[in-house]
This record gives sequence, C-alpha cells and structure tokens, in this order.
Amino acid sequence: MDLEASFTRCFDGLAAIDGGTTTPGTGWNRFAWTEEDLAARAWFRAEAALLDLSVSDDRNGNLWAWWGWPAPAAVVTGSHLDTVPAGGAFDGALGLVSALVAVAALRHRGVRPRRPLAVVAFADEEGARFNTPTFGSRLLTGSLDPATVLARRDGDGVTISEAVTQADVDPLELGADPEALARIGVFVELHVEQGRGLADLDAPVALATGIWPHGRWRLTLDGAANHAGTTGLADRRDPMLVAAAAVEAARAAARTNDAIATVGRLRVEPNSANAIPSRVDAWLDARAPDAERLDRLVATWRRAVEDAAAEHGVEVAVEGESRTAGADFDGGLRERMGATLQREGIGYAELPTGAGHDAGILSAHVPAGMLFVRNPTGVSHSPFERAEISDCVTGVRALAAVLEDLLCA
Amino acid sequence: MDLEASFTRCFDGLAAIDGGTTTPGTGWNRFAWTEEDLAARAWFRAEAALLDLSVSDDRNGNLWAWWGWPAPAAVVTGSHLDTVPAGGAFDGALGLVSALVAVAALRHRGVRPRRPLAVVAFADEEGARFNTPTFGSRLLTGSLDPATVLARRDGDGVTISEAVTQADVDPLELGADPEALARIGVFVELHVEQGRGLADLDAPVALATGIWPHGRWRLTLDGAANHAGTTGLADRRDPMLVAAAAVEAARAAARTNDAIATVGRLRVEPNSANAIPSRVDAWLDARAPDAERLDRLVATWRRAVEDAAAEHGVEVAVEGESRTAGADFDGGLRERMGATLQREGIGYAELPTGAGHDAGILSAHVPAGMLFVRNPTGVSHSPFERAEISDCVTGVRALAAVLEDLLCA
Repeated sequence: MDLEASFTRCFDGLAAIDGGTTTPGTGWNRFAWTEEDLAARAWFRAEAALLDLSVSDDRNGNLWAWWGWPAPAAVVTGSHLDTVPAGGAFDGALGLVSALVAVAALRHRGVRPRRPLAVVAFADEEGARFNTPTFGSRLLTGSLDPATVLARRDGDGVTISEAVTQADVDPLELGADPEALARIGVFVELHVEQGRGLADLDAPVALATGIWPHGRWRLTLDGAANHAGTTGLADRRDPMLVAAAAVEAARAAARTNDAIATVGRLRVEPNSANAIPSRVDAWLDARAPDAERLDRLVATWRRAVEDAAAEHGVEVAVEGESRTAGADFDGGLRERMGATLQREGIGYAELPTGAGHDAGILSAHVPAGMLFVRNPTGVSHSPFERAEISDCVTGVRALAAVLEDLLCA
Repeated sequence: MDLEASFTRCFDGLAAIDGGTTTPGTGWNRFAWTEEDLAARAWFRAEAALLDLSVSDDRNGNLWAWWGWPAPAAVVTGSHLDTVPAGGAFDGALGLVSALVAVAALRHRGVRPRRPLAVVAFADEEGARFNTPTFGSRLLTGSLDPATVLARRDGDGVTISEAVTQADVDPLELGADPEALARIGVFVELHVEQGRGLADLDAPVALATGIWPHGRWRLTLDGAANHAGTTGLADRRDPMLVAAAAVEAARAAARTNDAIATVGRLRVEPNSANAIPSRVDAWLDARAPDAERLDRLVATWRRAVEDAAAEHGVEVAVEGESRTAGADFDGGLRERMGATLQREGIGYAELPTGAGHDAGILSAHVPAGMLFVRNPTGVSHSPFERAEISDCVTGVRALAAVLEDLLCA
C-alpha cells in the first residue's frame, strides 16, 4: 500500500473544504457547527465508509468511526476537525487523516484486532467560536457542565444551544457520557507539533510527556477618554500606557520563570487616533512547566501592571478566564509506545507541550498518549503551519504500529 | 434679553439630536453627511430662520446664515456641527449656539452693522467618518484637493463622493471657492477649551494665540503569527512587544520635547488570545509648540521603535498620514479682541492649543481669531466634556462684544 498516495488523497479532501488547498494562503476557518464544520463531518463519514467503518454521533456531537462492534475498553485514536481563525491545514486534520490511513494500512496488511478500534473526531477542540476549547471531550468526561456554557454566544449572537441544534445535536442531551468514556480503553492522538522542538532535535516524531498548566487572564484598564491634541501629559489617565507595560511585563515574567506568556488580543475604546483611550482590555495567555511557576509568573505580571496603573492613574481589574491543570501522560503507555517505535526503527524524541488537547482531557480518566509530527518552522495556528510529506508518512507508520500493538496484545 | 435662557433653549435643541441630553452618557455621534448631521443642519436652518437670517449652502457643503446681504469682507463667526465618535455636547456646538445667541443679543439691543455678518457651520471639521478633518474649510480655501479624497470610504464602504451626494452636495462642485473666501473679512470662532488651561488660570475665557503643528503617523509592524502555547520565546517575532515599546516611546519623546503624543488607536491581527499576532498597526498623534520639536519628537520615537523591532525580529514601516503646519492667529485682531473684552470687564487669558480648527485653516488667508470657554475638567472628545452655564454666558457676551466691535467700527 502506497502510504504517501493514500495520505495525500485523504488529506487533500479535508483541506479542500475550507481554504481550498494546502498551500499557505488566507488560512482555514472551520468553526464548530458551521457549514464548513458540517462539510468536514460529512467528509469524515464518507472516508470512514470507504474503510467500512460504522459511524455514529455521541450525545456531545463527537463522531465515532468503529472498526469492530462498539464495546468497552476499545483502542481509540483521533483528533478534531475544527480550526482556529485563519488556522493551518494540519492542526487536528493531521491526526484524523493519519488515523484513517493507519486503519487502512492495518486492514491492508491483514491485521486481526483482538479488541475494537474507533477513530474519533472530537467536537470543537479549538473553542474558537464560543471560547470553549476541548468542548466535546470535556463534556464527555463530565469536566464541563453544559449549563454553564449553553447561553454563550458567538460573534453573531448565536448561542451554543442554537448552534448545536443546527447540527442535529440536542442541547438538552449534552453532558457527561460514562458509557462513551467506558468504551475508551486507551487513547492515542497524533498531532502536528506546534513548536520547533523536533526540528531542533532532528527527529520526525515525538512522544508527548505532558501538557503544561495553562491559564488565561483578562485585564481591564479604565482611564479617561480625552482629546489627544489638547490634554497635557500630566492631566492624562491613559490606559494604553498601562497596556504597554502589561505586554512587556508578560514577556519578562515568562523569561524569569522558564515559561511562555503572550498578549495576543487587545480591545481599545474608542480606538481613535486622536483620542486618549477611555479603556483598554488585554488578555494574558500564560503556560509554565508546573503550577507553581505559572502562579509566580502571573503574580509578578500583576504587580508590574498594578504599579504601572498607579503611576498613570488608571483603574485595573484582573479576572481569571480559564485555567487548566496540565497533564502528565500515562508513563506505562508512553514506554510501550516507545518500545513499538524502536522495533519499527522510527527515531523519536520526547517533548512536553504548552497546548491543550483532547488527549490531555482524557488523560485524567484513561491511559492516553500523543504522537507529535515534526513541524519544520514551528509555526502553528497560522496558514503557514506545515509538515513535510515524508514526516507525515512516518507519523502514519508510527501510529499504525502503536495501534497494532494495542489492538493485538 | 435673558442670555442664559436663550442659550439653554438653543443649545438643548442641538444636543437633543444625538445623545438626547447634555448629561454625560454614551456620547454624541454626528458624523458628516449622516442622518444625524442632516438633522443638525436642519436645526441650524431653523434657528437661523428664527433670527431672520437667510441661509445658503456653498459648493463644499458649508452652511451660511446671513445677517445682511452676502458681500465681500463680512464679519464671520461659527464652528461645526459634527462630532468625533462618542463625542461631547460642546465641541463645535458651543461655537454655533453662541454665535446664534450673540446675533440675537446684538439684534435685541438694536445694533446697526456697517457690514454684513455670517454665522457659518463648516462641514466635517472632525473628519471622523473619512479621516478628513477640516474638510469644509480646507476645500473652501483650496488647501485640500477634492480629487485626492473623493474615493475615501467610511467603515461601511461608502465613499465621500456618495456621502456628499446623499446630502445634496455635488461632488463635482467641491473645491476652492474664492468667492466664498472673499466674503470673509474676518473670522472669529468660539470653542470650548479642550484642556485645563483656563481652569488652572481661573479665567472664564481665553484668546487663542495659535495652533501647534500637528501630525499623524501610521506604524505597521509585521511579525509572525504563531501558537501562543507552543512557541518558545526565542522563536517568536511578536509585533505586540514592539507596539508596546512604541506606546512608551511616544510618551517619553513627548516629555523631552515639551510636547504631547498619543497612541490612541491599534489594530491587531488576528487579535486572538491564544495567537501571537502576525501584525499590529498603531497610530501616533503628536503635536509640539513648533515644527522643530515635532520633528525631533517623531525622529526620537522612530529610532526607539526601530530598535525594538530589530530586537524582536519584526519588520517596521512608518508612514506619515497627515501633517499640519500649525497657525499663529492674527496679532492685530487678537489685540483688538482683547481690548474689547477689557472694555466689557471680561477677564481673559491667552493660550495656544494643540487642536486643529477651521479658524486655523482660515488664518492662512484672512485675519482669524478664537475665543475659548473654560472647561472645568479639561475633558474633551468624550461624553464627559462640559462647560458651566455661567461660563457659556460669559462666552456669548464676549463673542457679542467682539462681533459688535467688528461690525460697527
């Protein structure tokens, strides 16, 4: 079986849905429950049908393609179909395409599983539309209470409740799904790496060691709107100056804590070139190797922001918007995956990541692991995200070997 | 004649058009040629009619209300009807209301002018909709070539050409209007002060000495979009850090040049909390007592921005969007206005301003002067802009005395 040809055919089908090609351009915009997402779900059903897999939705809108009869303790692999705004072609897509091609390869070489396998496409992993990342996996595992988010609206005022209904998911049925969870004996997610770890280490794939704790904080800075041309410096209460200090303090606090921090979103009011802003909102995204360093980073940042606010007569409020505890992937599973890769002669590295994944959510409930595929530039969440076809094929080989080992042991 | 009652009635009529009351709230949004602006223009025509003034439009959409037959070398006073986004009730409006009430007062006390007088409402002084400040006065004086701006679009994609057509102004007729200019023998604009100069000096009104040179520069910072959770600090090219440096450098350069500078507008792409921005645009508004200090300020700022961009691997471009030379108001006229105020027993100060005004545009062509009315907080371009009624009445008395002197000498 020509893995490269199978991979390319399958991958191009998904990439064609939004954005048109895998050439970097304006990016992919497949947000949960939209027309583009529904087209991707139809693509998934069609690809599964080509492999004689039987597809079913669960109560939370996750899609399952089964090889064998659905039963407890199955081997499960998969990822997600949705993207961030102007996202890349690989994030999520690579894991699903690789899973489908790996299943095709196992079938092609006559593997006879001792337990069922499912390829799962988790719903709304990025959370771009409703600010609800890992929506499908958190609902399934009971770690997200649907009542707390059903009324959230997208930029057009559509609620989650309305959006899922349009996708034939009953909002009243959303929530913990212990039967579905019990069917997952082990979960393996393949994902394009989102940094330059593998490029620097010169390896095609990695086993993930864990996910860093992560949080998002919203900073609200209230100053006083005023005329930019007539208000003396001493009479200003300019929140933009405090926002600038917050951007710089985030970088400094990340550096001293061996962590990462980003201010990627700002809202300025009234955002007029000749007016001192009345208010600036800024969002801090911070991730660190452990919870202590994350706390220290945020505390240091906050003190710096409060000092700047006091200096400029600006009122400051900091609100935690989200916080995830991070995850350590199952050590036994990782060892077993590593042994399989060695047997196959696939060189690999081990890396942590700062990004959240459905595998991280599941890892609190079942043995879970991740395979990363090298990203030559490290660019992700961008139309310029990419992976070499040879590395993608190595990823498929690695995933197929890991699945075969788990299915047949 | 009860000046306070006349003033209040007239002022409240204009304030009611957009925003509803003179109580600070969400602010006034009267942008050129919109429904709100047309309503304000109708208000102006109606108030002029109450005073038996004859109203006519000129080719550039400026409205003229004449006491006496339109003729060269008239005494002209006025201001503008449009506002900035979420603007205050006084900016522009105070000058027009005070002009109308002053004319009423002169008529009431039987003044017999020796030359005609006009109250003028200049079109689109703020330039909020099309980024074309002092549109009407610059067209009239020939200092703005309409061909360079007719295709500019507002936020909804409407061009200036389309917008003026909707207000019954022929876009092909826009441009230098030497006949209209020749009718202006002298121009006096009353305006709410936009800083705390009079509040600090404890005077109700001021004569303007001049307008500071002023410019606007657009800064474009191109970095690399990337995942906020997985990209190491060393692998980032984050334009937000350079924008932060630009905000702080603007303040520092203003301080060392006894000038003012503001970054009030930013545009962040993709502006997502979990993405390193690909690009940030920032606008610098800077004003200084003289051209040399303004140049020095911008050069210092630019060097600081370029240093930060080099440090962070970000590409930087700086583009001058507008520059005005500033203005020194006619010394003879100012002396004469001062003598009149002294005769009337009205205490006054003399102040420069960093704000542009139609009077500044006209000052290059005819003797022009300005009266400022005390602003107790200095807040302007904001719903919280205000002036005490007693100071507004003093402003009307001052303007009436100045106009009487100019009309009857």
